[in-house]
Amino acid sequence: MRYARVSAGGRAVWGRVGEEDVELLSGSPLEAVDRRTPDDPGLTVIGTVPRAEAVWLPAVVPPVFYAVGLNYPRHIAHCGAEVPVRPEVGYRANSALTGHGSPIVKPAAVTGRFEAEPELVAVIGRTLRNATYEQARASVFGWTIGNDVSARDWQHRDRTFWRSKNSDTFKPMGPWIETDVDALAQTTTLRVNGEVRAAFPTGDMVFDPYDYLVEITRHITVRPGDVLWMGAESTCRIEPGDTVDIEISGIGVLSNPVRPEGNSA
Amino acid sequence: MRYARVSAGGRAVWGRVGEEDVELLSGSPLEAVDRRTPDDPGLTVIGTVPRAEAVWLPAVVPPVFYAVGLNYPRHIAHCGAEVPVRPEVGYRANSALTGHGSPIVKPAAVTGRFEAEPELVAVIGRTLRNATYEQARASVFGWTIGNDVSARDWQHRDRTFWRSKNSDTFKPMGPWIETDVDALAQTTTLRVNGEVRAAFPTGDMVFDPYDYLVEITRHITVRPGDVLWMGAESTCRIEPGDTVDIEISGIGVLSNPVRPEGNSA
Repeated sequence: MRYARVSAGGRAVWGRVGEEDVELLSGSPLEAVDRRTPDDPGLTVIGTVPRAEAVWLPAVVPPVFYAVGLNYPRHIAHCGAEVPVRPEVGYRANSALTGHGSPIVKPAAVTGRFEAEPELVAVIGRTLRNATYEQARASVFGWTIGNDVSARDWQHRDRTFWRSKNSDTFKPMGPWIETDVDALAQTTTLRVNGEVRAAFPTGDMVFDPYDYLVEITRHITVRPGDVLWMGAESTCRIEPGDTVDIEISGIGVLSNPVRPEGNSA
Repeated sequence: MRYARVSAGGRAVWGRVGEEDVELLSGSPLEAVDRRTPDDPGLTVIGTVPRAEAVWLPAVVPPVFYAVGLNYPRHIAHCGAEVPVRPEVGYRANSALTGHGSPIVKPAAVTGRFEAEPELVAVIGRTLRNATYEQARASVFGWTIGNDVSARDWQHRDRTFWRSKNSDTFKPMGPWIETDVDALAQTTTLRVNGEVRAAFPTGDMVFDPYDYLVEITRHITVRPGDVLWMGAESTCRIEPGDTVDIEISGIGVLSNPVRPEGNSA
């Protein structure tokens, strides 16, 4: 099943995505999932929009937005960093989220490398504390795609990632949440203007999402709607005028145009 | 005016805090404030609870939770750090929030210093981007108090602050939002079991909240309900069995008992 958030009548509405249409739902499948199965969240259909006309919003607005940094061996080697010995997370800000199809705005003040990072995203469906690995596996509601857009000069110069990774529009997430996929057996492909810039096995991670959830929930209660971005193996430069697509097989394609600041198009 | 969030009938409800009672409100004053003044948010009273019986929740659940690190000259000198040359923020996680009166739980795994940090918190009431200093001033809806509870061994050892500052219950915030106070002209006092451990001028900051909002909104849209924790001049150790009070004159007292993990009292 594919669940998305779309704009309908000026409101954010959950939808079930079919081949031709998006069925608008009476509520959130994430709030229902503790009581029912993902395929029967007890929601009613309140309308329909043609899929081609849908305005996609961030796949979920998480209560807490977790992000993994160094998690792919090739990326770690590329950064000259040490392989982490335990799973550690950071945070991103919801203010940076944007949906599939919406522009990534490159700030005028960014002069260094401006890059896309293609990431698998786990969307949590259950409340979890002191989880076992199996409980962590069972807690994932579904999977979506994130682009951890980064301004490298700010990333290296600032004390935190506050603007390098959290400026407005720097966190596209979508297009939807896929509940029926073996996410770690897929391939992640990054394209700019249709040209492949990176492709890697999605599951080739130092620690998998369940390892992270076991570690996080030793100290922190994870809740439905929380997201865990899993890091990237490869990145690439993007510039205004480009269209950046991230495909994860079995999930979908997250596509966003890049615009310069001050251009409202 | 003092606005709080309290638990009523198992739900979180906004309230207006008087001397004897908390008047329960039909909605959030933060969502009304773009249209009206803080003193007339256009809300109706739907019930009353005696103030002595109120169960206090975090004063607000912010869309984005900003936190300032080094911002008081004495604290910076104590840390041996350089005085920041521009305002930079980090993030905390809503999962760590708890209300006035609720326990701070010290994890069993924490062996090093476990400390309280008394902080002024600005609560934003307007949507803000590319703000001037005066627009930033006008955007603050009111002020509350935060305790940036920190486990120092984790803070120094981990790559991020994920568990050192964001474990469950590590972010008490409350008891309420005070809209009528000159917050930067107050005194912050930290007490453990009634004994004063620190007292400092609340406004003795390197950069004030408006400086931060000007800098943040160069890159990021700030929205109603966002909070900005302003850092602390002094900290002190806390242990299970203690009660830690943070008073900011003109705002109120945030009081929390400290409990060991595994003790449900």
